[in-house]
Amino acid sequence: MSADKAEDRGAVEDEKERRLRRSLKQKIKKKDKPLTWRKRKEQHKPEKEEKLLNQLKEFKSYKEPAESVENNTIEDDGVEEVVEKKKSSKLSTQGRRYTVSIALPGSIMDNAQSAELRTYLAGQIARAAAVFCVDEIIIFDEHAKITRNDIDAFDRGQWPQPGAMDKPGDCNFLLARILQYLECPQYLRKALFPLQRQLQYAGLLNPLDAMHHLRHDDLSIPYREAVVLNKPVKEGRGSFCDAGLAKEVQVDRSLEAGIRVTLKLTSTDMMKRNLRADVVSPSEPRKKGGIYWGYSVRVASSLGGVFKDGPYEYDMLMGTSERGQSVDEVEVPNFKHGLIVFGGLNGLEACLDADQSLSADNPADLFQLYINSLPDQGSHTIRTEEAILITLGALRPKFIG
Amino acid sequence: MSADKAEDRGAVEDEKERRLRRSLKQKIKKKDKPLTWRKRKEQHKPEKEEKLLNQLKEFKSYKEPAESVENNTIEDDGVEEVVEKKKSSKLSTQGRRYTVSIALPGSIMDNAQSAELRTYLAGQIARAAAVFCVDEIIIFDEHAKITRNDIDAFDRGQWPQPGAMDKPGDCNFLLARILQYLECPQYLRKALFPLQRQLQYAGLLNPLDAMHHLRHDDLSIPYREAVVLNKPVKEGRGSFCDAGLAKEVQVDRSLEAGIRVTLKLTSTDMMKRNLRADVVSPSEPRKKGGIYWGYSVRVASSLGGVFKDGPYEYDMLMGTSERGQSVDEVEVPNFKHGLIVFGGLNGLEACLDADQSLSADNPADLFQLYINSLPDQGSHTIRTEEAILITLGALRPKFIG
Ligand SMILES: C[S@@+](CC[C@H](N)C(=O)[O-])C[C@H]1O[C@@H](n2cnc3c(N)ncnc32)[C@H](O)[C@@H]1O
Ligand SMILES: C[S@@+](CC[C@H](N)C(=O)[O-])C[C@H]1O[C@@H](n2cnc3c(N)ncnc32)[C@H](O)[C@@H]1O
Repeated sequence: MSADKAEDRGAVEDEKERRLRRSLKQKIKKKDKPLTWRKRKEQHKPEKEEKLLNQLKEFKSYKEPAESVENNTIEDDGVEEVVEKKKSSKLSTQGRRYTVSIALPGSIMDNAQSAELRTYLAGQIARAAAVFCVDEIIIFDEHAKITRNDIDAFDRGQWPQPGAMDKPGDCNFLLARILQYLECPQYLRKALFPLQRQLQYAGLLNPLDAMHHLRHDDLSIPYREAVVLNKPVKEGRGSFCDAGLAKEVQVDRSLEAGIRVTLKLTSTDMMKRNLRADVVSPSEPRKKGGIYWGYSVRVASSLGGVFKDGPYEYDMLMGTSERGQSVDEVEVPNFKHGLIVFGGLNGLEACLDADQSLSADNPADLFQLYINSLPDQGSHTIRTEEAILITLGALRPKFIG
Repeated sequence: MSADKAEDRGAVEDEKERRLRRSLKQKIKKKDKPLTWRKRKEQHKPEKEEKLLNQLKEFKSYKEPAESVENNTIEDDGVEEVVEKKKSSKLSTQGRRYTVSIALPGSIMDNAQSAELRTYLAGQIARAAAVFCVDEIIIFDEHAKITRNDIDAFDRGQWPQPGAMDKPGDCNFLLARILQYLECPQYLRKALFPLQRQLQYAGLLNPLDAMHHLRHDDLSIPYREAVVLNKPVKEGRGSFCDAGLAKEVQVDRSLEAGIRVTLKLTSTDMMKRNLRADVVSPSEPRKKGGIYWGYSVRVASSLGGVFKDGPYEYDMLMGTSERGQSVDEVEVPNFKHGLIVFGGLNGLEACLDADQSLSADNPADLFQLYINSLPDQGSHTIRTEEAILITLGALRPKFIG
């Protein structure tokens, strides 16, 4: 967001503002970088999603499942489409049409009193996001000091050590990396986080226990996260993937080795040599099945960076502060891509002050809604990690998809 | 609660039930123990409160404060009643007529992965309670193994070490003690927690930052927590107290040294030798000023013990579980003393199973309301420390005083 853009904001009404932001967005030229696992968030970008979706075969209908995978020996002359569906309610839920993003400054990590507690705090944020089905977490530099180069290095896989955060701004990358690590299903971590040993205190992290963290024999939902294997395939045939199942999965297209993909299983016959699956958009489980499918993570160089360069066109911007409007009085408008922004120890005021690109005087001017999630709080300050749970809890009944 | 009592519960309607519980309560003969700081919770007991209140002089009216305490040299021939009242809104708030108690098993401490994280977890519980103005925290033994003797030892001041929890059940006492420690204003800790050095990791604890944790020069509200000093007083004169102010405070009565009391300052003239105050019930700040004044802590030997022996006659009992009724559908009845019970790693089912004195088959039968605070949770399990914030956040707009 440019400086004058931010100034305008207070003056125009919501509808006008939204239109403006959209057109601005369209002007930003997206660079075409190679798709690696580190850039998986790119996959979330609407245009990429569209392309993928267009390539996809029609959604296959599911037969009622057999009692268990072991007993599942039904064969027909085509591809088996039997998938165990123990918790069928999961699939019968309505899809969720909207996304929720949250943004917070990495500086909260600096206030933790030891490397262990820093790691634990990152885990708290990850769990809060997962529990409330947050689709994107944006970590921004409160001091607006990190550069595009730093962010690129992070995207290439650099992992700051929890015990030695030497460079200012490292807190942001450490938080972002731990969030990514926790979001990744356990069976993919070795392949996708080769430097994971640098995460000294991983043992202290509470698991996300999210829906897409499936056990090796859990076929209760047809979707699976997987990594493309570096294995030769015949001309015209699809790549092999590791989806954390007893057998490899052959997909419907040829893909670059090492990237992370979302699969929809089309055959889970364990008698066959390989399982089969279609590659789908990572948003499909949410959109079609109403299943929460984890969050993407991105680092922004300042508060202003939160609003731009994201995978979504946010159409509901919300700030949080004890000086906001009481959440009890707030009506949340219908939205497609909501963004809720939290401050650090010194609130959003400090984040705004540090960002030269934002000319607003008051953080409230940056948002459509600026809310106090806990009127009558019994403590003088609510910590960011607490505010996330409290705010998302207070807003949940007010979200309409 | 006796076994058949618990069984009845499901059968009778709410009103009948409430009457029954009240008469049962009245039959429990209260023992008259000496009032020590360790037994401060006793002060919360309604009948004690009544007695105290009766003894109290009428509430004194406040003059508009002088600019600052230093400038405050107004004298009249009586006692000065000038108290700085910077944040006058605090006093103009309506009083809160109801109390909220929460109960949880100490076993959650056993799941923490290190002594540091155990301490930190206790701090999370304390903060969640303070942020939501919880008046009482009950820690119960999930395994129903601790005895009355153990609880008495705890009440006499025994403090289990975070690093060495040898005896089963110690987790409950450690959690309860850290909760007490954090609730106590900093300036009283040395006097009231002589063994505080046993709290190895106190430095890791995030402060509560509650309203009654006042700085040495903060007279923005007239109430103060204090400890009675061991100092001779003339016959018929009141005791001296340390209220964390620059001068000692002489109160309106003679009290046992070492006990913790709530004061209402009646004179804060720093030119005089001593300040003056009336001893009031700890519930007065809440009832008259709407100011959250911390929580009391008690240990119960099992889930069943949560419902009895408390300082309040709970008239709204609520259990929590992912298998409860959606909070969105729940209407919370008007109550005076609400109690919300949380389970540990294995839920309230495990707590019920362990308690021989409870014959209910299903935890839901123990409560008027059994709620799921987060329909559509994105993680398979919500941790107890998360569930407290989420549940209290979801219920807050539904509480009517
Ligand atoms: C420690 S607080 C910031 C306190 C800072 N001194 C201020 O005045 O804003 C950290 C963050 O938690 C969130 N927060 C704290 N209290 C809140 C409340 N009552 N409602 C909504 N968000 C809150 C805000 O995002 C805030 O920036
Ligand atoms: C780890 S959970 C217990 C999980 C346990 N396996 C069960 O099935 O109940 C710990 C506690 O958090 C609370 N809790 C968890 N999820 C909840 C939800 N959706 N609504 C309300 N309370 C919840 C309950 O008090 C529960 O006993």
